[in-house]
Amino acid sequence: MSYVQESSLRVRYVETDQMGIVHHANYLAWFEIGRTDLCRAAGTSYREIEDAGFLLVVAEVRCRYRAPFRYDDNVRILTRIEKSGSRTMVFLYELLDDSGSVRATGQTHHIWVDRNSRRPTVAPPALRDAFERLARQ
Amino acid sequence: MSYVQESSLRVRYVETDQMGIVHHANYLAWFEIGRTDLCRAAGTSYREIEDAGFLLVVAEVRCRYRAPFRYDDNVRILTRIEKSGSRTMVFLYELLDDSGSVRATGQTHHIWVDRNSRRPTVAPPALRDAFERLARQ
Amino acid sequence: MSYVQESSLRVRYVETDQMGIVHHANYLAWFEIGRTDLCRAAGTSYREIEDAGFLLVVAEVRCRYRAPFRYDDNVRILTRIEKSGSRTMVFLYELLDDSGSVRATGQTHHIWVDRNSRRPTVAPPALRDAFERLARQ
Amino acid sequence: MSYVQESSLRVRYVETDQMGIVHHANYLAWFEIGRTDLCRAAGTSYREIEDAGFLLVVAEVRCRYRAPFRYDDNVRILTRIEKSGSRTMVFLYELLDDSGSVRATGQTHHIWVDRNSRRPTVAPPALRDAFERLARQ
Repeated sequence: MSYVQESSLRVRYVETDQMGIVHHANYLAWFEIGRTDLCRAAGTSYREIEDAGFLLVVAEVRCRYRAPFRYDDNVRILTRIEKSGSRTMVFLYELLDDSGSVRATGQTHHIWVDRNSRRPTVAPPALRDAFERLARQ
Repeated sequence: MSYVQESSLRVRYVETDQMGIVHHANYLAWFEIGRTDLCRAAGTSYREIEDAGFLLVVAEVRCRYRAPFRYDDNVRILTRIEKSGSRTMVFLYELLDDSGSVRATGQTHHIWVDRNSRRPTVAPPALRDAFERLARQ
Repeated sequence: MSYVQESSLRVRYVETDQMGIVHHANYLAWFEIGRTDLCRAAGTSYREIEDAGFLLVVAEVRCRYRAPFRYDDNVRILTRIEKSGSRTMVFLYELLDDSGSVRATGQTHHIWVDRNSRRPTVAPPALRDAFERLARQ
Repeated sequence: MSYVQESSLRVRYVETDQMGIVHHANYLAWFEIGRTDLCRAAGTSYREIEDAGFLLVVAEVRCRYRAPFRYDDNVRILTRIEKSGSRTMVFLYELLDDSGSVRATGQTHHIWVDRNSRRPTVAPPALRDAFERLARQ
């Protein structure tokens, strides 16, 4: 089983659209908050990862929208690592409301990229180990 | 074969992130531009569809990012209908650069919803016919 | 003196731009978070205000950017009421970093609008009283 | 008199909020489109300006909202230079609808910054000349 990172946020007004619900593109930014918090649980921060010369570039995104969120709703983000390889990572997400119902699920695929050359690279070993520990926890 | 709607835009500064490329969440807003233009090709506008009491709610999104876009790049959006059913629709997208290279592909699934009850409904027949004609063109 | 509402947030990756700092448009969304929290301090919520048939529409915005925020920075938002009239409201904002330095200041002017007619209206008296108490506190 | 740059765009769905109108923060991104186009009229591009090692950082923003824009509306952006100094620039904006009515006005103050040192600097002379010609045209 994988470690599950829990994050939370409150829906911002700017995130709504004229349907009266959160615009679906914002969920991708919420997933990013989950990844940021998961990096901290791995003993680092994504900011430090970039400062060390690495980028975790998004290669693919999927999101299923089951029920909408509205302005001022609390959103719980559950993030886990599905796969941590030497060159790629896959994260899974669940977005829950206050009652614990899953309102959306998602998955993002990432490629490790060298910040200077902008070419695919291998994850820093210490970081990869930390992510793998979380993935197996 | 399906009718292919072509749209175009120029990348906005606000759409970039600190990687120096377009943030991946913006592609979902670009797909939406493609759908808006495709509705016009079907002889209506998405604005009129909502005014008539219907919402085409996003149920699922997928996007593959092959190569990044940067600030001030031209983006060509190719949108087509993969499936137009009585209750659901599926759109396909390709994002191309000036040289015609595909930098990203995507797919969105939608559900027809009654604007007042917020419950799933059946697409207006005239609209469904128009979309089906485009899907088979 | 006016009551000062304190809110806080952590900068999201999506809020950065290719300058490597937070894009200036996001500050307006952060001000909105401050207003949302201030409404709660007034014993209501902005969501309830809209549900009761009122909109607090933005008529004017000013923002001064002294020093930038970066990804993953903590932002403290201080929000206060500068003026609470029967038809208009003015809010003031300060954005501080962890060290207490003010990195930006702002001001927003608002007009009370009837949600149905979309015409200017008078603030609900109970709400106006609550805001005035906060303004004089 | 100053040269007036005209740009245009169509309101995106993602730009609306639950009031059913364009969220006010988007106007700042629209002003940015006007500046981008004005740079081209000056014989350069803002992308080239950054590539040459300069940033035109936003120091202050003002916007007055007279009447809202809605999804799918056409927006005409009129941008002009109010002041082009050696270290600062001020731009003025008007946002018009199809009938020519001004729905919003704005002003942005900018500081020339060295991209590497991130310190205030002097505008490149050729660029400053080009902007001054447009300002006096």
